[in-house]
Amino acid sequence: MSLVTDTGPALIALDWGTSGQRAWLLGADGGILAARSAGRGLLTTTEDVDLDDPRARAAAYESAFRKTCGDWLTEFPGLPALAAGMVGSAQGWTDSGYRTVPAGLDFPSLVPVSHRDGVLHLVPGLRIPSGAHPGDVIRGEETQLVGVLEALGDPGGPLTVVLPGTHSKWVRVEDGVVTGFTTAMTGELYGLLIAHGILARTAADPVADDEAFSRGLAAGRRSRGLAIEAFGARPLVLDGVLEPESLPDYLSGVLIADEVSHLLHDADTRVVLCGAGELCRRYAAALAGRGVEAIVLSEEVTARGLWRIATAAGLLEDRLERTLKP
Amino acid sequence: MSLVTDTGPALIALDWGTSGQRAWLLGADGGILAARSAGRGLLTTTEDVDLDDPRARAAAYESAFRKTCGDWLTEFPGLPALAAGMVGSAQGWTDSGYRTVPAGLDFPSLVPVSHRDGVLHLVPGLRIPSGAHPGDVIRGEETQLVGVLEALGDPGGPLTVVLPGTHSKWVRVEDGVVTGFTTAMTGELYGLLIAHGILARTAADPVADDEAFSRGLAAGRRSRGLAIEAFGARPLVLDGVLEPESLPDYLSGVLIADEVSHLLHDADTRVVLCGAGELCRRYAAALAGRGVEAIVLSEEVTARGLWRIATAAGLLEDRLERTLKP
Repeated sequence: MSLVTDTGPALIALDWGTSGQRAWLLGADGGILAARSAGRGLLTTTEDVDLDDPRARAAAYESAFRKTCGDWLTEFPGLPALAAGMVGSAQGWTDSGYRTVPAGLDFPSLVPVSHRDGVLHLVPGLRIPSGAHPGDVIRGEETQLVGVLEALGDPGGPLTVVLPGTHSKWVRVEDGVVTGFTTAMTGELYGLLIAHGILARTAADPVADDEAFSRGLAAGRRSRGLAIEAFGARPLVLDGVLEPESLPDYLSGVLIADEVSHLLHDADTRVVLCGAGELCRRYAAALAGRGVEAIVLSEEVTARGLWRIATAAGLLEDRLERTLKP
Repeated sequence: MSLVTDTGPALIALDWGTSGQRAWLLGADGGILAARSAGRGLLTTTEDVDLDDPRARAAAYESAFRKTCGDWLTEFPGLPALAAGMVGSAQGWTDSGYRTVPAGLDFPSLVPVSHRDGVLHLVPGLRIPSGAHPGDVIRGEETQLVGVLEALGDPGGPLTVVLPGTHSKWVRVEDGVVTGFTTAMTGELYGLLIAHGILARTAADPVADDEAFSRGLAAGRRSRGLAIEAFGARPLVLDGVLEPESLPDYLSGVLIADEVSHLLHDADTRVVLCGAGELCRRYAAALAGRGVEAIVLSEEVTARGLWRIATAAGLLEDRLERTLKP
């Protein structure tokens, strides 16, 4: 690291998912020099594009990339760039493929995609071996995991990393190797039940109610099954013992407790939560109810994960060599 | 019964729910003389009505009643009439209230509502005692249960009656007394997941696939939790081992097996299924997978339940007395 004298920008790093982009300009030490986010996710980017026309698709992605990072590309020509997330999926700019678990978090091979000003490298996802049940894939989360390990100082031994969200991921890591993961569509179920059907008709506009959330957690922990305990919110409202505007927080508790009940194993002594603050707070409460004290990390660790992957792949060295040339 | 010489119509019986009406003209022995169904459920009936105006509401219900049964009322003046279902709810014609379980299935008191040509009697629903968790109510199903017991010849001892549907009911009956019940919103979850979100985007228009249903049952029996196993349908499709048009049947298997896993107790030796044929077939398969051979009854037993309640309440005697008067 002593060779690094250039304290200016060293990497353009992107987390480019289905619904948006987050982009960072990182220094040689991985520090964040600038950050921006934009709604140019896969859905928006390919809205009016024939996905079966590779040239049109590439043009749409290049345009979206340039809109977010064009000024950086112009100001710092030749700066290496790396992206993780659905931009590397079959519907993305280029399919960066999947590595099959068990897989180390070192990402020896990135997939380059050329654009007018250079190359954007894409991080491959991870997949459960085909034929195993349930099969499953992650894309973008692998980079978040690298950031998690980096933030923890690369701990050895077994670790369970929970990434709560629309589709929560529970990832098992052992000595830096991902050994498996499982998805729970808890967030999506919450969204569906709150927007449609009998619970939507029972609820009022949500008002934060921690006590209702805790009652939901207790109900979900009973493990009578999600279809039973979720419905149970309705008679509570009809009986006047739960306010209609507290139903959403109660339901959130039921669903999160059900997820934790099914996915937390007795062997999970070290659990890390990484995601949006409010969601992590809820999962931490559910885990505490099961006697587990989780380490909570911000999802901003993804920037650190991108920097780490770029470093390991030698992307920053290329830049350094070019910078040091007369 | 020997007094009954009039083999003509003895009762107008209605199952009047949220989305529709089923009406029967029954003979003195409970035989079905005529049957009709109409879409005049609560939602349609009260569509343009101010529910807080009792006169307007009563007029709307009377009009809907007359549209379906008016010719019977005219042709057979003074014929007793009985209705079960949401027509007796707080948003119905008149609130017929609830009886608290444990409750016998004899319905000593019906709630009369007057109309131009006479009286329609309403069957009260059943409720779990307030404060018990989860509280719950049924309305209409209590009459279906009477029909189930009638069809079985009033068996003594414990019985579990499963009424599958949008909101499935599992009812415990012991020696003709309802001791408790639980609701699972399995059918609603199926509808939401097939219509919205990631599984809807993964599925194609459904094609019946019993093998996919059986695979879903096996997955749901593992009890990894509904939010995990439902999501698991997606990687199966992505891996090419489940056809997109078979996803709905797979999901149906997952959800029904999860419900059965949570609600079937080891003590449930006698299980009765009562509902739509195709749904009963699916639940029977799920129960068979748990070693339980269920008795399957058609939901038409409701007509028999209405006749039985009318008989026990003396409604038919009133008619007889009037008929026998010179």
